[in-house]
Amino acid sequence: MNPRISQQFEFIREIDRLKSVLRHTKPIGLDRRENSAEHSWHVILMAITLAEYAKEPIDLLSVVKMLALHDLVEIDAGDTFHYAKSSTEGLQEKEIAAAKRIFALLPADQSTEFFELWTEFENRQTPESKFAHCVDRIAAFWLNIGNQGGTWTDHQIELDLIIQKNQHAYEGSEMVWEAAKEMVADFFKARENPS
Amino acid sequence: MNPRISQQFEFIREIDRLKSVLRHTKPIGLDRRENSAEHSWHVILMAITLAEYAKEPIDLLSVVKMLALHDLVEIDAGDTFHYAKSSTEGLQEKEIAAAKRIFALLPADQSTEFFELWTEFENRQTPESKFAHCVDRIAAFWLNIGNQGGTWTDHQIELDLIIQKNQHAYEGSEMVWEAAKEMVADFFKARENPS
Repeated sequence: MNPRISQQFEFIREIDRLKSVLRHTKPIGLDRRENSAEHSWHVILMAITLAEYAKEPIDLLSVVKMLALHDLVEIDAGDTFHYAKSSTEGLQEKEIAAAKRIFALLPADQSTEFFELWTEFENRQTPESKFAHCVDRIAAFWLNIGNQGGTWTDHQIELDLIIQKNQHAYEGSEMVWEAAKEMVADFFKARENPS
Repeated sequence: MNPRISQQFEFIREIDRLKSVLRHTKPIGLDRRENSAEHSWHVILMAITLAEYAKEPIDLLSVVKMLALHDLVEIDAGDTFHYAKSSTEGLQEKEIAAAKRIFALLPADQSTEFFELWTEFENRQTPESKFAHCVDRIAAFWLNIGNQGGTWTDHQIELDLIIQKNQHAYEGSEMVWEAAKEMVADFFKARENPS
């Protein structure tokens, strides 16, 4: 096999491990935690579906690439709960090391491209990375609402904190963020005042 | 919430169910079956990684969209084992009905776009759909090889049948198909002649 495609095949084998990285949320109605691979698929299709609402013009293929890659570092560094109270000190260094190790499986040009896409996502400075973060931030909303509050209920997380922790989603799309906030607010309202 | 985004949000909630559709393969080293959502993520990243080998020029964003959508019909119609000996009569009608139901959750223009992309994938006539099929066909190769033969061993499927059943992958990329065949042939050779 030619060495270039052989390296790419090795990368494809390695990334399969993302299917064993567990998040805190559960898919709607399922009694198991969601893994980061299926989550990545879900946010990709969210981005495709909601692209028209991006705050600035975006290259949707770049957004999709970022979302396909964004969680790969968790293969080494694990998933971090978004509302974690404990310290995440040292996490960034761990994630950078993970990105370097995993992308180094690829041919040099592609390794550089993927590392730059991952860094662009992390830095949240471009229209594409802001929009990618927007869908990534709200993805858990559907799951928790569909699971009677899910991790919000488990960890006694209230509406104010959810909005505070995720409001940078508006940088990617005000339309999407406003609609997502409304969906969550309606859920909390219905929970407090069951009809 | 405006009605358009409300429909799109409903679609995003509905497609979460793909996480509960189980395939026959298992992720490498895991004692559970792979679901169609995490599989969809894996083939998307395969397509991004291997796009340079497409037999004809492709619009990679279209390929990714097709792969993100291609298995949604399984929410209603279930996954069909690729080497199934039993009849798949009526399956196509079930899948068309599923596509219509699921995409109808979306605003009309987007419903039409997604249905057309899904139909394009199914018909395998365009460079994009041929390339999407190519990665979809070989995705199980890494999983089965990483699991001591996996479903091939379980169902006594030999090299000849694997090649015969998947060789239309070459329509999307001869380079990728040749390399994938070599990988599988090496696995069977090593299994027959353990060193």
